[in-house]
Amino acid sequence: MLLSAKTIRLDLIHPFRISRSVSAYKENVLVSLSDGAFTGMGEAAPSAYYGQDAVSAHAALVRPDVILPTDPFDLEIGDKRLRTALPGQSAACAAIDMALHDLAGRRLGIPLYRWFGLDPTRAPLTSFTIGIDDPETIEKKVREAASFPILKVKLGTERDLEILKTVRTATNATLRVDANAGWSRERAKEMVRLLPDFDVELVEQPLPPDDRDGLRMLRDISPVPIFLDESIQVSSDIPRFAGCMDGVNIKLMKCGGLREALRLIHTARAHGLRVMIGCMIESSVAITAAAHLSPLTDHADLDGHLLIANDPFEGVKVREGRLILPDRPGLGVVRKKE
Amino acid sequence: MLLSAKTIRLDLIHPFRISRSVSAYKENVLVSLSDGAFTGMGEAAPSAYYGQDAVSAHAALVRPDVILPTDPFDLEIGDKRLRTALPGQSAACAAIDMALHDLAGRRLGIPLYRWFGLDPTRAPLTSFTIGIDDPETIEKKVREAASFPILKVKLGTERDLEILKTVRTATNATLRVDANAGWSRERAKEMVRLLPDFDVELVEQPLPPDDRDGLRMLRDISPVPIFLDESIQVSSDIPRFAGCMDGVNIKLMKCGGLREALRLIHTARAHGLRVMIGCMIESSVAITAAAHLSPLTDHADLDGHLLIANDPFEGVKVREGRLILPDRPGLGVVRKKE
Repeated sequence: MLLSAKTIRLDLIHPFRISRSVSAYKENVLVSLSDGAFTGMGEAAPSAYYGQDAVSAHAALVRPDVILPTDPFDLEIGDKRLRTALPGQSAACAAIDMALHDLAGRRLGIPLYRWFGLDPTRAPLTSFTIGIDDPETIEKKVREAASFPILKVKLGTERDLEILKTVRTATNATLRVDANAGWSRERAKEMVRLLPDFDVELVEQPLPPDDRDGLRMLRDISPVPIFLDESIQVSSDIPRFAGCMDGVNIKLMKCGGLREALRLIHTARAHGLRVMIGCMIESSVAITAAAHLSPLTDHADLDGHLLIANDPFEGVKVREGRLILPDRPGLGVVRKKE
Repeated sequence: MLLSAKTIRLDLIHPFRISRSVSAYKENVLVSLSDGAFTGMGEAAPSAYYGQDAVSAHAALVRPDVILPTDPFDLEIGDKRLRTALPGQSAACAAIDMALHDLAGRRLGIPLYRWFGLDPTRAPLTSFTIGIDDPETIEKKVREAASFPILKVKLGTERDLEILKTVRTATNATLRVDANAGWSRERAKEMVRLLPDFDVELVEQPLPPDDRDGLRMLRDISPVPIFLDESIQVSSDIPRFAGCMDGVNIKLMKCGGLREALRLIHTARAHGLRVMIGCMIESSVAITAAAHLSPLTDHADLDGHLLIANDPFEGVKVREGRLILPDRPGLGVVRKKE
């Protein structure tokens, strides 16, 4: 198999601010994997939060002898090799895992959702994310997002109540909030009590990832369900946090690919947890890969490709929050026509 | 899709005795599922322990409108429908799940292990089971099983030490023991301390399924790893018993099919548990289905088809304990030539 990797710059439509960072563009790494007859695509969206960037991800992807199985269908062995060869490079792992699934799916001639035994019409609605901004810009963004039935509002600032008031005044959409670990215990206690006033459906990562006692305490008093994102990277994280959450946000870039995402979903279900599938800032390649698994989840937050101005690809479509999966083989992603 | 079901009688080579029962034959239900072009096979091995028999399993399988998805690839929806329509009939569910996977695998033209992304050469060695008997018969059975590198010895009687001595004197094979919930706490404490004298690798289900406190206590003092079988039926049972065991014995007939078996494996791994894949008295249809998943496990106990005299099928072969998976599409099981 022939592997090539290329760093691309994805320009954001609006600068994207969450509790800990702001960005105007994102550098991801695209991989393409060919067996001579078919080519699979993958994408790494490296995360500074996990100590990754495009340089480290790209460097990780230039050793095909170490990271690839001999047969693209040897996906479990491929997954183990990747994890062993690329510790800490979950986004690079996800890119290869995705490309292997795309390649094998193309060889089978069926879309990934079908390979996984899923009904694409069961994909949940996706939310659209409203980053942190001044009230005028937030109001403008909420108006722009009028076609989305669910908004995810980024919080974790001193102005959270102002943000919530601005958003709720501007829309009747279902609201989810995401503190991205930006609250203290005291602040989180205050905030979760106020969330029902804004008709908030769920709150994501209210406390720092490792504050298990705080999360358990918060879950006891919270009138809205608590979902964890930064706390949960792979399936073995779930048992430790099972009593601290109502649901988990799974991302291919955190866990290293579709196979581990499936393990996370199964482990979460065994614990009676709800499951959200989320994303980073990603092109249609990685978003579509996640969307293929989404019929197994309750909630989707797959809007990363909608936040960028120059997505080179098309795959899953979003219509009023509905995820419409391509029925082409594999990921079903194609390069956009110029 | 056209579904038909037929009860078959599998005659045992030797009467099979475990701690709670003895049997000379087993009645299983075979199903066949046709889409006009391809036919998938499945098998239910109903278990009296779970309140099932061939009559109830057969009755459960004659309602195709309720239990089948419209498309054989809609495996997740099929799985949910089955569980809802056939509560308590895990063996009947397994038969349909297996037939759907066989049918879809035949349509894809690839063996099941390949569909699951597995390398068939990674299948673990299977053990061969020595049922409860008098010393002379046990000695004879152990000699007959000389080609197997691993034996599973059924215990749970007053004569357990005698049985262990007989077996260990007759063979140098790796030994596993299975009490099938037949010990009291006191008896189990005595027994696990003696197991290293017989070089026993692991002990299965030493206490009644629901005795969590006893199992936790026993695990603290046991010099050999404790595996649970009867305690764990489906993946949601794992979190409750995670601190009470070192490994889990997964069976298609207990959990209701390949999809739930995969969920069990993933959940067990997330808890750091070892995984065994086991069976009931089954023909090559159901044994082969389990064998296709076995590369994901550490230990196999897939000898059910070797205990019967009139297996109508051939699928996975066993050579000196090695499981040799067929590379035909789907399950790869064919009817034996007369």
